[in-house]
Amino acid sequence: MAKSKVKSVYTFGNKKAEGDASMKNLLGGKGANLCEMNLIGVPVPPGFTITTEMCTVYVKEGREKVLKMIKSEVEDGIAYIEKHMGSKFTDSKNPCLVSVRSGSRASMPGMMDTILNLGLNDESVKGLVKKTGNERFVWDSYRRFVQMYGDVVLGLKPVSKEDEDPFEEIIDHLKKEKGVLLDNDLTTEDLKVLVDRFKKAVKKSTGHDFPSDPWEQLWGAITSVFDSWMNDRAILYRKLNNIPEEWGTAVNIQAMVFGNMGDSSATGVCFSRDAGTGENIFNGEYLINAQGEDVVAGIRTPQEITIEGSKRWAKLTSVTEKDRKNNYPSLEETMPKLYKELFDIQKKLEKHYKDMQDMEFTIQEGKLWMLQTRSGKRTGAAMVKMAVDMFEEKLIDEKTAVLRVEPNKLDELLHPVFIKAAMKKAKVLAQGLPASPGAATGQIVFFADDADAWATKGHKVILVRIETSPEDLKGMNVSEGILTARGGMTSHAAVVARGMGKCCVSGAGSLKIDYKTRTLEVAGQKFKEGDWLSLNGSTGEVFEGKIETEEAALSGDFGKLMEMADKHSRMLVRTNADTPHDAQVARKFGAKGIGLCRTEHMFFEGVKIKAMREMILADDEAGRRAALAKLLPMQREDFEGIFEAMEGLPVTVRLLDPPLHEFVPHEEENQKEMAKEMGISAKAVKEKVESLHEFNPMLGHRGCRLGNTYPEISEMQARAIIEAAMNLKKKGIKTHPEIMIPLTGTLTEMKMQEKIVRDTVEAVFAERKDRMDYMVGTMIEVPRAALIADRMAESAEFFSFGTNDLTQMTFGYSRDDAGKFLPVYLDKNILKHDPFQVLDQEGVGQLIKMATEKGRSTRPNLKVGICGEHGGEPSSVEFCHTVGMNYVSCSPFRVPIARLAAAQAAIKDNSTPAKAKKADKKDDGKKAKKK
Amino acid sequence: MAKSKVKSVYTFGNKKAEGDASMKNLLGGKGANLCEMNLIGVPVPPGFTITTEMCTVYVKEGREKVLKMIKSEVEDGIAYIEKHMGSKFTDSKNPCLVSVRSGSRASMPGMMDTILNLGLNDESVKGLVKKTGNERFVWDSYRRFVQMYGDVVLGLKPVSKEDEDPFEEIIDHLKKEKGVLLDNDLTTEDLKVLVDRFKKAVKKSTGHDFPSDPWEQLWGAITSVFDSWMNDRAILYRKLNNIPEEWGTAVNIQAMVFGNMGDSSATGVCFSRDAGTGENIFNGEYLINAQGEDVVAGIRTPQEITIEGSKRWAKLTSVTEKDRKNNYPSLEETMPKLYKELFDIQKKLEKHYKDMQDMEFTIQEGKLWMLQTRSGKRTGAAMVKMAVDMFEEKLIDEKTAVLRVEPNKLDELLHPVFIKAAMKKAKVLAQGLPASPGAATGQIVFFADDADAWATKGHKVILVRIETSPEDLKGMNVSEGILTARGGMTSHAAVVARGMGKCCVSGAGSLKIDYKTRTLEVAGQKFKEGDWLSLNGSTGEVFEGKIETEEAALSGDFGKLMEMADKHSRMLVRTNADTPHDAQVARKFGAKGIGLCRTEHMFFEGVKIKAMREMILADDEAGRRAALAKLLPMQREDFEGIFEAMEGLPVTVRLLDPPLHEFVPHEEENQKEMAKEMGISAKAVKEKVESLHEFNPMLGHRGCRLGNTYPEISEMQARAIIEAAMNLKKKGIKTHPEIMIPLTGTLTEMKMQEKIVRDTVEAVFAERKDRMDYMVGTMIEVPRAALIADRMAESAEFFSFGTNDLTQMTFGYSRDDAGKFLPVYLDKNILKHDPFQVLDQEGVGQLIKMATEKGRSTRPNLKVGICGEHGGEPSSVEFCHTVGMNYVSCSPFRVPIARLAAAQAAIKDNSTPAKAKKADKKDDGKKAKKK
Repeated sequence: MAKSKVKSVYTFGNKKAEGDASMKNLLGGKGANLCEMNLIGVPVPPGFTITTEMCTVYVKEGREKVLKMIKSEVEDGIAYIEKHMGSKFTDSKNPCLVSVRSGSRASMPGMMDTILNLGLNDESVKGLVKKTGNERFVWDSYRRFVQMYGDVVLGLKPVSKEDEDPFEEIIDHLKKEKGVLLDNDLTTEDLKVLVDRFKKAVKKSTGHDFPSDPWEQLWGAITSVFDSWMNDRAILYRKLNNIPEEWGTAVNIQAMVFGNMGDSSATGVCFSRDAGTGENIFNGEYLINAQGEDVVAGIRTPQEITIEGSKRWAKLTSVTEKDRKNNYPSLEETMPKLYKELFDIQKKLEKHYKDMQDMEFTIQEGKLWMLQTRSGKRTGAAMVKMAVDMFEEKLIDEKTAVLRVEPNKLDELLHPVFIKAAMKKAKVLAQGLPASPGAATGQIVFFADDADAWATKGHKVILVRIETSPEDLKGMNVSEGILTARGGMTSHAAVVARGMGKCCVSGAGSLKIDYKTRTLEVAGQKFKEGDWLSLNGSTGEVFEGKIETEEAALSGDFGKLMEMADKHSRMLVRTNADTPHDAQVARKFGAKGIGLCRTEHMFFEGVKIKAMREMILADDEAGRRAALAKLLPMQREDFEGIFEAMEGLPVTVRLLDPPLHEFVPHEEENQKEMAKEMGISAKAVKEKVESLHEFNPMLGHRGCRLGNTYPEISEMQARAIIEAAMNLKKKGIKTHPEIMIPLTGTLTEMKMQEKIVRDTVEAVFAERKDRMDYMVGTMIEVPRAALIADRMAESAEFFSFGTNDLTQMTFGYSRDDAGKFLPVYLDKNILKHDPFQVLDQEGVGQLIKMATEKGRSTRPNLKVGICGEHGGEPSSVEFCHTVGMNYVSCSPFRVPIARLAAAQAAIKDNSTPAKAKKADKKDDGKKAKKK
Repeated sequence: MAKSKVKSVYTFGNKKAEGDASMKNLLGGKGANLCEMNLIGVPVPPGFTITTEMCTVYVKEGREKVLKMIKSEVEDGIAYIEKHMGSKFTDSKNPCLVSVRSGSRASMPGMMDTILNLGLNDESVKGLVKKTGNERFVWDSYRRFVQMYGDVVLGLKPVSKEDEDPFEEIIDHLKKEKGVLLDNDLTTEDLKVLVDRFKKAVKKSTGHDFPSDPWEQLWGAITSVFDSWMNDRAILYRKLNNIPEEWGTAVNIQAMVFGNMGDSSATGVCFSRDAGTGENIFNGEYLINAQGEDVVAGIRTPQEITIEGSKRWAKLTSVTEKDRKNNYPSLEETMPKLYKELFDIQKKLEKHYKDMQDMEFTIQEGKLWMLQTRSGKRTGAAMVKMAVDMFEEKLIDEKTAVLRVEPNKLDELLHPVFIKAAMKKAKVLAQGLPASPGAATGQIVFFADDADAWATKGHKVILVRIETSPEDLKGMNVSEGILTARGGMTSHAAVVARGMGKCCVSGAGSLKIDYKTRTLEVAGQKFKEGDWLSLNGSTGEVFEGKIETEEAALSGDFGKLMEMADKHSRMLVRTNADTPHDAQVARKFGAKGIGLCRTEHMFFEGVKIKAMREMILADDEAGRRAALAKLLPMQREDFEGIFEAMEGLPVTVRLLDPPLHEFVPHEEENQKEMAKEMGISAKAVKEKVESLHEFNPMLGHRGCRLGNTYPEISEMQARAIIEAAMNLKKKGIKTHPEIMIPLTGTLTEMKMQEKIVRDTVEAVFAERKDRMDYMVGTMIEVPRAALIADRMAESAEFFSFGTNDLTQMTFGYSRDDAGKFLPVYLDKNILKHDPFQVLDQEGVGQLIKMATEKGRSTRPNLKVGICGEHGGEPSSVEFCHTVGMNYVSCSPFRVPIARLAAAQAAIKDNSTPAKAKKADKKDDGKKAKKK
C-alpha cells in the first residue's frame, strides 16, 4: 500500500494551532484542548498530536504499518518543536526534551501511560547540566526518565500486588546504604548511581541496553502509548465508563517544561470550581520543585493553591496556622503574581468552555505554562450545583444545564447518610480529606482482590489502602467506601472514587497500615481485616464500627434541577413499589404513579403466608377458594394502603406471578413446622413441595399460567383490587387502578384473564351499585407476546415491558445462573454491557420497538411503559423515549435519575413537547393534588 | 334484528338437490354427499340439511336466536319430505318419521349424536302398526326412539364408567323378569313395557313427560345435535385431529327407511376398497332386520357383504363353512340382486369421487337406499397402496396421488413389527379381527383412564375392553394397542384405532373380560392388570407376554410413493443422528444428509465419560487440555464412523451443547464411585457438582457459552471433526462437514467460535499439507439470534433452527415443566396444539421467517434448515417450505414423513421446481452415490 495521505499529526504552539476544541474525536480531549488554549492565547509549550485514527490503525494493523504512516509527519513535528524551543532533539549540547502522553476522546485519568523528559541520555545529560548549571535537576530528570521509560515502555513492573516496584526497590536499597529517609535527601551522586543501577536492571531484565537514541526512545514511547490503550486497566476503565474501544487514544508530544528546576519552579493541578461540592471557588494543589506526576501520585502531600483552601485544609488535618504558613503555604502566598496569572487563565478557560475546568500547569523558573485543560470530573452534588449555578449565572441555558448532569451521578445524592441518632455514639478515629461525598459502613479489607472476593460473598467492605493505584480499580468499584492514608483531593483514590460516585476519605495520615499482617493502627487501636469501619466522604471523618445510615432527600439545587428537567420531558416516571412506604418515598422523589406493584411480596407475612400455603395445599378448587377467602380482606387492605399513598395517581397492580414453590419451605425442618401449623403430616407437605419442584422455574408454572390454571386466584385478586379502590372512592380518595396480567404469551391467555377480571369487577360494581374507571393490560415479558403484540392489544389496554424477564428469554440467560459466564463475556467484550443493567437495544430493544408499533397499530392510544430495572438506567430510559413510551417505572431511589434521563432524551430528541403528547401526561397524574 | 335472509336449509330427494358435493363447508360432508348422490342418480331417502353456519350461530348466540332463524325453512323442509313420502309428520294415522343426524365438514365417526325414528308417539305408533301390519317392528322402533332420545336429547346417561346405562339397566331387568337372554327374545308386549318404563325413567329424571309432539321432538333433536358439537368427546376428537371449532356441524333430517322391518330388510356399511390393506376389493358388513346403529355399535356380530369376505372372516374366526353359510351368510348370498345393485352403486360412487368410499345403506323390504357416502378412513398402508393403485389405474394424477397420503399416517408403516425369531416361541391366545395393522406389546389395562395414568408413568399399555366407546378416546390414544372382545372391522375401536394409526385387534370373542376384578380369561389362562400381552393388528392375533419388535422397511408401494413425492419437492430432508447406525437407518429412509449430529451423546460411554469428568474437574486450562487430549482420538473415531455412513452427503456437527452438570453424577453413591475412580475425595466431587448446579439450566452455562468460556473444548472438537474428515479423504471417502455453533445470541459469540474453529482447521490443513471444503454455521435457538440474524449471517454460512429451544424461549415454556400447565392449556383451548409438537407459526414461525429473510439479506446463498423435532411434523414442514428453507432435518423414522410433507408443500405451493432451486439440491447430496 502506498503511503497514506491521511494527515496524522497536528501541531500547536505560540498561540497558533492546526486543530481546535471541536476536534476531540480525532485529537483526543487533551490534544484538542492544547490547540484550543493556543488559539485563545493561553501559554502552552509547543508540540503536536498524533491522531486517534493512528491508534486504530495500530490496534488493527500493527506497529510497522502505523510507523510507516506517521514517520515523516512526526519528524516534521519534532522540527516544529525544535524551531519554537531553539534547541535540538538529538543535540546533546542543547537537547530538546519532550513529554509523550496519551489523550483519548474521554478523560481516563491515570489509566494510560505518560513519559516525561524523553530525549535524555548519558551525553545530553552533560550538555543539559552545562546549559542549566543545575546538575541535581538534570540527574533527577534523567533518573525519572529512565524509571518511567523502564516501567512503561520496557515493562519492568512489580509482578504481584505485595511485590515492590523493581525501581523503588533499588531506591530503597540505596537509601538504606546511605542511611537517608527521603528521596530528596539523596545527593546528585546518588542519583547517578541510581541511573546506573536502573540501566543495569533494564539490561538484566530485557537483555538489551537502555536505548540512548532519542528517536528510538520516541518510537518506543509512541507505540507504548498505543499499547496502553489495550492494557487491562484501560479496558476495565472503559468498561466501567462505557467508552468504546474503537475510539482509540491520541499521542501528545510536547516540549518539556520543568517544575523541578528549583524553588522558582512548581507544578500543580487546579479546578475552576469545587469538584466535590460544586461551589464556585477556584481551588487546586501544587508542589514546589516537583514534576507533574508527583502531585497526582500522592507521594508527597501537596499544598493548596489558594489561601482559603489552604486554611480549610489545615483545619481539617489539624495543622496549626504557623505550621501551615511555614511548611504548607499556598501558591497565592508563595508566588502571588503567578497565582494571579493562573487565576485569570482559569476564569478565561471556564468562560470559554462554559464548564468547570480541571487544569494542569507547570511553573518553570517563574514562567507559567498550562499543560492541560479539560472539563473537570465532579461529584453528583457538584454536577447539580454547577449546572444550576451556571444556568443562574447565565453561562449556560436551561437545556444545557439539564444535559450537563449525568443522571447516574444523582445516585450519589440519593446515597445513604448516617442516621443522626447513630452519630451521637460515633467515635472519630481519624480525620482525612473529604475526597468523595456520601456515607459508608463496611468491613475492612486491605487488598482490591479481597474486596472483590468479599463483596461477591455479600459482605459490605471498606477498602483501606496506603494509597490506591489503577490496579485497585475493580476492588474500589465493589467497595462501599475507600480510605487511604496518603494522597490529596486529586490523588488517584479521590479522582476515581468521585468518578464512581463512591464515598472516599483520602490522606488520613494518622493511619498505620500493615499489609503483611493485614492490620490498621489508628488512635491507639488496632483493627484487623473484617472489623467494621465507617466513613463520611463529605467531611473526611473515619469512625469506629458500624453506623446505621438513612436515605437522603431531594431538595435545594437538586429540586431546582428536577423542576427544570420536568419542563422538558415527555415521558412520565413511575415507580416500582409494593408497600405504602415505598410509594411515599417514590412520590417524594417525583414519581407520577406506580408502574409495578407486585402482589406476591404481600403474601410473605405471618397470617398471609399461612393462608397462601393453605391454598397451595388444597386439592381442589373448593379448598383453594376457602383459603383465598381468607386472603381477600388482607389483600384488599394492602391495596387500600398503596392506593391511598398514591392518591390521584395511577397504580399498576400485577396479579400473582412467581411459581407457587416460592411460598413453601424447602428445608425439612421448616416443612415440619409448616405441617404442624397446618395440622397435616410432614410427609404431605414434603410431597406437595416436591410436586411443585421445577427444572427451570423461570420458564415454568407462573404468571398468568397460574391464573389460567387456577382462575380463582385471579378472581380473588381482581376483587381485592377493585374493592379497595371502591372503598377509597367512598371516602373521596381518587384512585386509578390498572390491573396487569403477567407473562402472557398468547392472546387467549390474555383474554381469559381479562374476562375473569372484568366479570369480577362488574360483580363488585353491581354489589356496590357504583362504578369507576379502571384498566386491564398486560406485562410484555415473553418474546412471543412482543411478536404478537398487535393481537395482544386487542385485549390489553396497556403494555408494560418487563425487561428483566424479556432479557432473560430473549438472550436465553438465567439471571440466577449467568454468573458463570456473564463476567467472562464482559471481560472478553462479547457483551459491551450486562444486559440486565443496560437494556440491549439491538435485540431486546428490537422486540420492544416492534411490540410498541404493533400494539399501537391495533390500539392507537395504547399506554406503553417499562417496569424492568432498566426503567431507571439512563441510556435505557432514552431508548424508551425514542420508542415512544408513555412512562418508565423504576425503583423509588432511581426516580430522579429516570426523570433527568427522560428530560435529556426529550431535549436530545429536539422535541419541544407537543400539546398532544402532553395530553396523556395530564391524564396520567398532573391533575393529582400534591401530597 | 330482522329475520335473517341467510338460506339455512338445503333440500334433496328423488335425484334432485339444492346442494352438491362442493358445498361441504356449508352442508357438512354427509349433507353435501346426500345432495351429490341424488344428483348422480343414487337412491337416497328425501330430506334436507340445516347449514353449519346455524351451528356457529347456535354456539355464539344461543338456541332462541337460531330457532327463529331456521323455523320456517325447517317447516318447509318437513313439507318437502312429506310430499316425497306421501305421509305426514304429525299425522298419527300415516306418520312420516325422520332421522336427525349431525354431519360436519370432516368426518367424526361416533363423535356426535344421532336420533332415529323421530316423530313416533303413543298415537302414531298405532297408526304405523295399522299401516305396516308389523307390530313388533313398530314397537322396536318406538323403543329405540325413546331410548335414543332419552339418552341424547334428555341426557339419561350412565354417570360413571362402571355404571350401567339407565336404559340398558331397565332392559336387563326386564330380561331377568322374563328369563330371556337376548334382546330379540323380548316379545312385542315386552317392548311396550320397556317403552312405558323408559318414559317413567325420563319423567323421574327430568321431571317432565317424554315429549309426544313430533315438532317438539324435532326442535329438541336439532339443538341436541348442535350441542353435541361442543361435548367433551367432540372437543377431544377435534383436538386429536386438528379440526377447528369454528367449522360447526350441519344437521341432516331425512325420511326414515327401516332396516328392521323384517327379514327382507337389512342395514350395513361398505367400502369400495379394503380400508386396512388398501386392496381394490369391495367389502363391508351388514345385519338383517336391524337398524343402522346396530352394525357400528358392535352389539351383534355383523355379517360380511361379499362371499370372499365372508369366507376370509370365517377362517380368521375359526367358523366352519357350514356354520358360516347357515348363520353368517354374506349379502351376496342372501340378497344377490340387491348385492349387485349395491356393487354397481359403490363402483359408480368411487369413480365419481375418485377415492375410496365408505357408505351406509339400508334395505327396506327389498328396496336399497343409500344413506351416506364419504371418502373412507384408511390405514397408512392402505392410504399408500390406494394412492399408488389409483395413479396406476389412471383414476388420479401423480400430484393428487402424492397429496392423497397424510404424511403422519406413514408413521404406521414405520411402526415396529414382531421380530421373526421372537415369534417362534410366541403363543397365540386368541384370534380377533385385524382391525388396525402394526404390532404392539404392552401391559394390560382395562379402563381408558388407567391407560392414561399408566402411560404417563412411562408404561407401555394395551387397552383391553369388551368394546370401546367415544369416552375411551384419550386412553386409546396413549395405548400401544387396543384389544376388544366385541365389534367388527367397523366397530368404534376399529375405526378410531385406524384413525390414530394404532394397532388394534377387535372382536376377539373368546376373551372373557371382568371389569370388577380387572381380569381377562382366555385360552384357559387368567391375566390380570399389568400382565404383558402382544397384538398383531395386521393378522388379528393376540399373543401371550412380551414379544420383541423391530422396525419396518420402506419398499413396494411405499417406495414408489416416495419416488413420486421426491419428484415434486424442493426441500431436502436430512436426519438427526448421532451414531453410524442411526445415520444408516435414516439413509435407508431417504435422508440426504445429517442436519444435527449431537456430540454430547458420544461422551456418555465408559472411557469417554471419565475423560469428560476429568475435564470438568480440572481447575485450569492446562488440566482441561490434558483431559481433552484423551477425548480427541475417541471423538475423531466417532466422527469417522458417522461421516463414512453418510459418505458423499453433508453432516452438520453441533459442538458441545448441554450444561456440564449433565455429565456428573448427582446421587451421593455415584459421586463416591466417581471420586474413587478419579482418585480424589468424594467431597471434592460433591463440591464440584454443587458448583455446577443451576437454577434454570435451560438458560444457563451451555451451548457456545461453554465454548467461549472454555475455548479449548471447541478447539478439540473442531480438530476431531476435521481430522476425521481428512482421514476419510485419504481413503477416498468424500465428506461434507458443517460445523455448527450452538446457542449463539450475539455476533461476537459466533465470531469468536468461528475463529477458534477456522484457526484449528487451518492448523490441521497445515499439518496434513492438504485442504478440503467445510462450512461453519450456527443453530438459531435463542430469540435474540433470530432478531439479529442479519448480523449473524456475517459470520455464519448456514442457519439451522433449533426449534425445540427456540419454542421454549419464545413462549417462556420449560419443556420439562410445562406438564403442569400445557395439558390445561390444550384442554381450555388456550393453545390449539402443543407447540413442541406442531410449530407455532404465529410466534416462533415469525422469528424463523424474520431470521431467514434477514440472514439472506446479508448472505443471499445462506443455507437454512431446521433441526428441531418439528422437522418431522407435516404442517411444520410445510411452513419450512413456505419460508424458503433448503432442508428439514428429523429423526430417522420420520424421514419419509418429512419427504412426503415436503413434496406436498411444494405441490400446494404450485411451484414446479425451478432449475435454480434444484441447484442447491444437487449441491446437497444428489451427486452422492447410493449406498
